[in-house]
Amino acid sequence: MTAAAGSGSEELAQGVLAGHARAIGRAITEVERDSGAVPGILRRLFPRTGRARIIGITGPPGAGKSTLVQRLGQTYRRSGHRVGIVAVDPSSPFTGGAILGDRIRMAELYTDPGVFIRSMATRGALGGLARATSDAVDVLDAAGYDVILIETVGVGQDEVDIVRAADTTVVVLVPGLGDDIQAIKAGILEIADVFVVNKAEREGADRAVAELSMMLDFAGHPPWRPPIVKTSAPSGTGVPEAVAAFEAHRAYLAGSGEGLRRRAVRARSRLLALLEDRFRRAVEARAPEPDGLEEAVRAVGERREDPYTAAGRLFDGLVRGAREAAARGPA
Amino acid sequence: MTAAAGSGSEELAQGVLAGHARAIGRAITEVERDSGAVPGILRRLFPRTGRARIIGITGPPGAGKSTLVQRLGQTYRRSGHRVGIVAVDPSSPFTGGAILGDRIRMAELYTDPGVFIRSMATRGALGGLARATSDAVDVLDAAGYDVILIETVGVGQDEVDIVRAADTTVVVLVPGLGDDIQAIKAGILEIADVFVVNKAEREGADRAVAELSMMLDFAGHPPWRPPIVKTSAPSGTGVPEAVAAFEAHRAYLAGSGEGLRRRAVRARSRLLALLEDRFRRAVEARAPEPDGLEEAVRAVGERREDPYTAAGRLFDGLVRGAREAAARGPA
Repeated sequence: MTAAAGSGSEELAQGVLAGHARAIGRAITEVERDSGAVPGILRRLFPRTGRARIIGITGPPGAGKSTLVQRLGQTYRRSGHRVGIVAVDPSSPFTGGAILGDRIRMAELYTDPGVFIRSMATRGALGGLARATSDAVDVLDAAGYDVILIETVGVGQDEVDIVRAADTTVVVLVPGLGDDIQAIKAGILEIADVFVVNKAEREGADRAVAELSMMLDFAGHPPWRPPIVKTSAPSGTGVPEAVAAFEAHRAYLAGSGEGLRRRAVRARSRLLALLEDRFRRAVEARAPEPDGLEEAVRAVGERREDPYTAAGRLFDGLVRGAREAAARGPA
Repeated sequence: MTAAAGSGSEELAQGVLAGHARAIGRAITEVERDSGAVPGILRRLFPRTGRARIIGITGPPGAGKSTLVQRLGQTYRRSGHRVGIVAVDPSSPFTGGAILGDRIRMAELYTDPGVFIRSMATRGALGGLARATSDAVDVLDAAGYDVILIETVGVGQDEVDIVRAADTTVVVLVPGLGDDIQAIKAGILEIADVFVVNKAEREGADRAVAELSMMLDFAGHPPWRPPIVKTSAPSGTGVPEAVAAFEAHRAYLAGSGEGLRRRAVRARSRLLALLEDRFRRAVEARAPEPDGLEEAVRAVGERREDPYTAAGRLFDGLVRGAREAAARGPA
């Protein structure tokens, strides 16, 4: 890191800690770009984090998450909280239009100085988006936003990784989605701390609640049984009850030790992701060297060498003590 | 690796090369388990791979992929090809029932000795499933199956990574899926070499073809424009045309140099995945050491140290020349 980058990140971090919106926005841009200034910014901000309640909101497209997030934000605002919203969009450029429409509906909140809203789009690897989300949450946390809502668009492993930055994970569903969507959403059921059945004015809302309830019965009796809340986001019906459910989960986390356990899991996955990112860069940086990745790609592509042998050779050249560890035999 | 594991993998590899179904099944089980025998097996098999045409088939749940794969397998069989099928299911245990139903419908093919069918389920990380799929394809390729069909269930980055093992990627869609599914599928449109509009007997098939065609017009004029084929898998209508489209793509790959380019891209992503896997294991193996991952997790969890500083320290201890590279400054 250059000295200039260092002093720039110090200034930026001070602006964030003072709660200046422009500094917060710029810091999140650095985070999104994964710039060289990020480690310096985070080093300065990190000791001031850990105060915000972080709520992740996920569910299939079309579940009305953006409107719900808007209503949640307003409800938390009314009880005097400062609210940060990170809307994460790991979708392709094709869907940009629809997402933009959702953002425009959030316009009401944009004029409130106690609210900070930021959309983050995928740039390359989705792993990078999970990292950027965690970092952006730290920026908002250090800036004094005491409720941070992370909204993800879509379903799947990628979204699971992103909402891992949250203390409380909310899965939003709607009545009447077909079996196809039901199948897709199975993967995210396991991560729910609270279920919200949104668009509850639609037919089938009670059936959806009953089906979810049966699935939870089927899953046994864990220490925390996710409550199911019906909401109708455009009118705001049920939104205070949703907030009450989040707060109940927060109390459970604090009282049970589960909160500490989750923060440790999060610290671990964040460290592993950063380590893997550095490793990938180290591999790429040395790729053109003799015995580097490029030569191995050629050897494997031409079937002169199998991928395991080639990877083993590259690994031995990169990692301290690799040959010695291999000689000691498998664990 | 122990000597016993080494000789076991030699025997297994010989069985695979001789085309023995039991050895092939056992080799794929080793691959699925990521056992210590895998590097030895692959080292032996790899020089005998590269002959099969590898076709990846993806698309949203409910698109009828399993029935289509069955029909494709039969069509290739009729022209004298040996067919391997790898059905990859990166879904949660919740959806197991539905998937099993699909598998049962493939029963016809199970009795054909010129066909090898294998389901692979997710065990832990999805990255591991992409690796296992590539390895399983190599096993089938070395065993003399000259057409290998990889079927994935679902949509998203995970499936994209899995079908990367293929020469030709087929995206299966159906008419009349709602806008929600249309939004989800956007991400997989870019990877299609051939589109199949399945369930073409349904209303809206021609409109679906016209919409896809417009999207392709919009995307400009790449050297290969993905053909769009209408099929009706239960009756087999359109399946020979689908096979003809795959063969046309194969001819394009061979004639244009794109085939070689793709194999290089695949070798690279496979090497990177293996390297990252080894790195992750090395990190875990040294986690309990002083200055290892466990202590760093505690420090970050208690906010005594920020994730970037902690990751940097761990990385320096693990990777050769890391400190020197950092001292040289950013690239």
